[in-house]
Amino acid sequence: MADTLSSRMFVNFLGIPGILLLVYLGGPWFIGFVTVVSLIALYEFYRLVGNKNASPHVWIGILAGALLLLFHYGNICPEIVIVNWHHILIGLILIIIFLELFSGKDNATANITYTITGILYIPLLLGTMVSLRDIDSSGVETGYNLVVVLFVSVWSCDSAAYVFGKKWGKSKILERVSPKKTWVGGIAGLITAIGVVILFQQTHFFPANTISVYHAASIGTLVGIFGQAGDFVESMIKRDAGVKDSGAFLPGHGGVLDRFDSLIVATPLVYLYYLYVVVGCCTV
Amino acid sequence: MADTLSSRMFVNFLGIPGILLLVYLGGPWFIGFVTVVSLIALYEFYRLVGNKNASPHVWIGILAGALLLLFHYGNICPEIVIVNWHHILIGLILIIIFLELFSGKDNATANITYTITGILYIPLLLGTMVSLRDIDSSGVETGYNLVVVLFVSVWSCDSAAYVFGKKWGKSKILERVSPKKTWVGGIAGLITAIGVVILFQQTHFFPANTISVYHAASIGTLVGIFGQAGDFVESMIKRDAGVKDSGAFLPGHGGVLDRFDSLIVATPLVYLYYLYVVVGCCTV
Repeated sequence: MADTLSSRMFVNFLGIPGILLLVYLGGPWFIGFVTVVSLIALYEFYRLVGNKNASPHVWIGILAGALLLLFHYGNICPEIVIVNWHHILIGLILIIIFLELFSGKDNATANITYTITGILYIPLLLGTMVSLRDIDSSGVETGYNLVVVLFVSVWSCDSAAYVFGKKWGKSKILERVSPKKTWVGGIAGLITAIGVVILFQQTHFFPANTISVYHAASIGTLVGIFGQAGDFVESMIKRDAGVKDSGAFLPGHGGVLDRFDSLIVATPLVYLYYLYVVVGCCTV
Repeated sequence: MADTLSSRMFVNFLGIPGILLLVYLGGPWFIGFVTVVSLIALYEFYRLVGNKNASPHVWIGILAGALLLLFHYGNICPEIVIVNWHHILIGLILIIIFLELFSGKDNATANITYTITGILYIPLLLGTMVSLRDIDSSGVETGYNLVVVLFVSVWSCDSAAYVFGKKWGKSKILERVSPKKTWVGGIAGLITAIGVVILFQQTHFFPANTISVYHAASIGTLVGIFGQAGDFVESMIKRDAGVKDSGAFLPGHGGVLDRFDSLIVATPLVYLYYLYVVVGCCTV
């Protein structure tokens, strides 16, 4: 436990400034980061569900995820994106179905569904982080600031939930899914997330007038509630697969999927909130 | 068998002119038809996979399918479609994941993946029929003609494959998946599909200059190969679930999903072919 905690702190020590630097650099650096993280997490997801009588098409899924991230979200080569995303998805589904037809493996339907769902759960949802980074509102670039606040608020929320839950937590939120998560920890996490986003807003971290204090409170609430819910979702998937950690890529961190489970759920919600509520639906 | 065949002919007798009439009427009639067919087929799909240790969220899936068909494909109320399809999909995935979190059922991951895949396999793919019906090229409405040819060529292909396969068929295509389908039947189906589309083209069924004879041959090839492949895909899903028919909604027809399996796969391919090859990607 002590060993796990110290190696976890070591990863944080290198990881936190490293991630913030990549967010700052943006462009191909940040797209590359999100792509690498998503594809490792997707690989871990396929290994997890592979424990349950399914043989997802791991490499096809990872290739499809890479195409989705680089060409759709990353837009790395605009001139070759001649088809819209909806049509790419249709083609992808047909390809996966046909591959299964000729693979001759058992549990055909499970193999198809897990392959497709993995792509939708991880690269589709986490890829919105690239869209969020690249967003700007009336010519003011706010994407960088939003992504920094997203990371810092998710990390703060997790830490507060852990510390308060460990010290004062008694009654469990959903013991069946995640036996350690308590209401005290959860509420401490939520308040911390809201507080962190409001703190950034009040200290003028966002470009002038882009985020009001009400929007800051809403973004904090989304992170505090749905970031923690993302944790439960991943626990549910792991529990269902009968394993504890999603992978062992980062020492003490129990897998990349484990580390990014909150962001997988919180990021698309913050992105959609900013796009449709802050900016307003009709101007994008 | 005789009984099955005669009730099958009865359904065809009512069904074929009925479907062609709905294609002709277009608009809400055709959208309604595609929606009803897709949602019954989706219900059958959920029942099928429910045989395999999964409890998909049937009604949420059907509701999501209905929204996708009516608002995205049918565009029945353009002023309320304020978000793009990609964002709707993200929201949908998050809702299904959270419902599962609180449902407390076993096999959480399977329940999520089957719910999502059902929506993608049936309403997403079959919905392209509505887009195909509404397509027009340089102001000439060709959608009606394309959908009629699609139905007639799929039906002709199936019938030819059945008759030739029964009479002369010996060597099987994929015995493991579909023990009755033979190479003779398959090739007869393919040639028939190509012949039917070329026949329509040669008799000036398509508005002037919209479809060349080469395009007609290509569309026939897509129907002949992938329509039959769609049949195999559905056999694979049924075989995997351990049942013979997908439902019993149409007497002798073994379920709506059974009747539309070829179209589920052939329609999006014909639609994408027309959009990107015939019309050309950059003009749409």
